[in-house]
Amino acid sequence: MAIFLALVHHPVLNRAGQVVTTALTNVDIHDLARSGRTFGVERVYIVTPVTLQQRMVQEILGHWTEGEGAAHGRRAEAMRRVAVAGSLDEARADIERLTGRAPEVVVTGAQIRGKTIGFAALRERLHDHQAHPALLVFGTGWGLAPEVVEGADLRLPPIDRAADLRGSDGSYNHLSVRAAVAIVLDRLCGDRCHASV
Amino acid sequence: MAIFLALVHHPVLNRAGQVVTTALTNVDIHDLARSGRTFGVERVYIVTPVTLQQRMVQEILGHWTEGEGAAHGRRAEAMRRVAVAGSLDEARADIERLTGRAPEVVVTGAQIRGKTIGFAALRERLHDHQAHPALLVFGTGWGLAPEVVEGADLRLPPIDRAADLRGSDGSYNHLSVRAAVAIVLDRLCGDRCHASV
Repeated sequence: MAIFLALVHHPVLNRAGQVVTTALTNVDIHDLARSGRTFGVERVYIVTPVTLQQRMVQEILGHWTEGEGAAHGRRAEAMRRVAVAGSLDEARADIERLTGRAPEVVVTGAQIRGKTIGFAALRERLHDHQAHPALLVFGTGWGLAPEVVEGADLRLPPIDRAADLRGSDGSYNHLSVRAAVAIVLDRLCGDRCHASV
Repeated sequence: MAIFLALVHHPVLNRAGQVVTTALTNVDIHDLARSGRTFGVERVYIVTPVTLQQRMVQEILGHWTEGEGAAHGRRAEAMRRVAVAGSLDEARADIERLTGRAPEVVVTGAQIRGKTIGFAALRERLHDHQAHPALLVFGTGWGLAPEVVEGADLRLPPIDRAADLRGSDGSYNHLSVRAAVAIVLDRLCGDRCHASV
């Protein structure tokens, strides 16, 4: 199994539903690197078409992998798996270059409706060693633009609480992307199925 | 089921294993509020004995629940569940006042060893409507001080990846507290067991 992550800053939606480019958030890079490393993700792509923002990511990575931060061994280890991509297509091409196979693109989002693959089904698929590499795609802002969701190979359903806990207040999913990435990775790669010890 | 969270800034360990008080991290408050709201947590306690830091939390909460931020309905809804406590004992007393029962204190941490309750067992316990309220305790810095871990009613095991994914690089759990909270809540309250749709 080879799992890759992409954190997309364009094309994503803003609050008004318009397609925009969001700015980098430093803590996202750190949290995704650490969650990725914990669950065995091969590479975390920070996707932005803005050259200046790409350079900012490179500087942050340089600090942690070669600069002063490199002394923090565990953080450096996590940050070494982060890479910059100008677009999702660039990330896909990089994965093909690394693994020799085109990845299956799996999108996530609180707003995803219609046909989805369940977490358990995707987990099973990924744990099959014959599987294609998978690229799990997360949006910033108010979520991935429809073109990304529609162009994907697979869609994961929104994260929700258990049915017996859904009260009169209905569903509410307003997780940070940091929390969503952690939960999705745990559902796909975590040890919880064996956690009844 | 009534679940409460505590994010502890004292007593916690620093890198050298000394007991210290950590500073507030703004994004922790937001992420824990949002994850808490998503999974139905009753209240999120930000635990710090430092008066100035307590005041800072109150100001942040005021901004989001009464000030300019209140217009952001979903964020306000999440932030309304956050409260300040000077110590874990204060949080426990508040829960007893709110629910009429003393909570079971459940600690978490990447360093926890020895006897633990599995996630599946705790999940079952919590979904029993006769259950005591539970207070899930998370440490900042390098984790909860031993006195908190030893004084707890229950201990959760560290989060890990699935056994078939543990490679030659061994285990690595260096998750942010934001990611750890999200994963623990999902394991205890998420819909993933029913996610094979």
